Amino acid sequence: MKVEFINPFLRATQHVIKTMAFTDAIAGKPFVKKDEKAGGDVSGIIGITGETEGSLSISFTESCICFIVSNMFGENISKLNSEVEDAVGEITNMISGDARRELAEQGMVLQGAIPTVVSGKNHSVRHMAKGPSIAIPFSTKAGHFLVEVCFNK
Amino acid sequence: MKVEFINPFLRATQHVIKTMAFTDAIAGKPFVKKDEKAGGDVSGIIGITGETEGSLSISFTESCICFIVSNMFGENISKLNSEVEDAVGEITNMISGDARRELAEQGMVLQGAIPTVVSGKNHSVRHMAKGPSIAIPFSTKAGHFLVEVCFNK
Repeated sequence: MKVEFINPFLRATQHVIKTMAFTDAIAGKPFVKKDEKAGGDVSGIIGITGETEGSLSISFTESCICFIVSNMFGENISKLNSEVEDAVGEITNMISGDARRELAEQGMVLQGAIPTVVSGKNHSVRHMAKGPSIAIPFSTKAGHFLVEVCFNK
Repeated sequence: MKVEFINPFLRATQHVIKTMAFTDAIAGKPFVKKDEKAGGDVSGIIGITGETEGSLSISFTESCICFIVSNMFGENISKLNSEVEDAVGEITNMISGDARRELAEQGMVLQGAIPTVVSGKNHSVRHMAKGPSIAIPFSTKAGHFLVEVCFNK
């Protein structure tokens, strides 16, 4: 996967978190994920089809997503529930949409499927497309989250 | 979602498990899943696009998937590892493909995205398409697994 395909996902993530939760998500250095053990407590997952195929995931710790969703809703959310899961699905969809819009401007037309949300303490996500799985770590005031993208080419 | 869209997934699951792992998966009665708390230890998830959009998941307990993968590989696998995760991705892909082939014969043309595999003790999967999430419980000699499908229409 070319580096110019990663940056739209990085920018889309920062834009969506800033717009929805009024807070900054500071991106760390993207890396090739070889150890699938890096875990989260809730993940949004979306399949991507079109000129290439792959998947996008975004995994939050419970404290991080509760902070983000509290900001989104304007009320204090202290633990994972179905409203938080819905918000994770929505965030995943918006990041996928934003990134695909930018990629389309570069001539790469992709479609997004419907997101799925997984909850469970410290789970890990493994992407099955043929290319490397690229992870972008983000930090917020209330902890970190990880965006991963993986494409066939 | 119409019941005639569920049966192809039920039949595809039985066919794939029988063909790959030489064992029977006995289907229980499909139900509308309202409580997302039913958990698994490893899940394959795949987005589906085309004339409608949705997602398919298949969630195994660790003992059940180790039995299935031991049968597939012809060697004893006693715990979740990356080979087991790859096999879950492959099983998910095959069930999606088999079911979509049967649906295409009924005039419903769908495409499958690339699967993603989630590992983690007792996680749950939440599908975000607009329709009900239909779950089909299966039992094997070594425990149960759950197939879920959810479409926008």
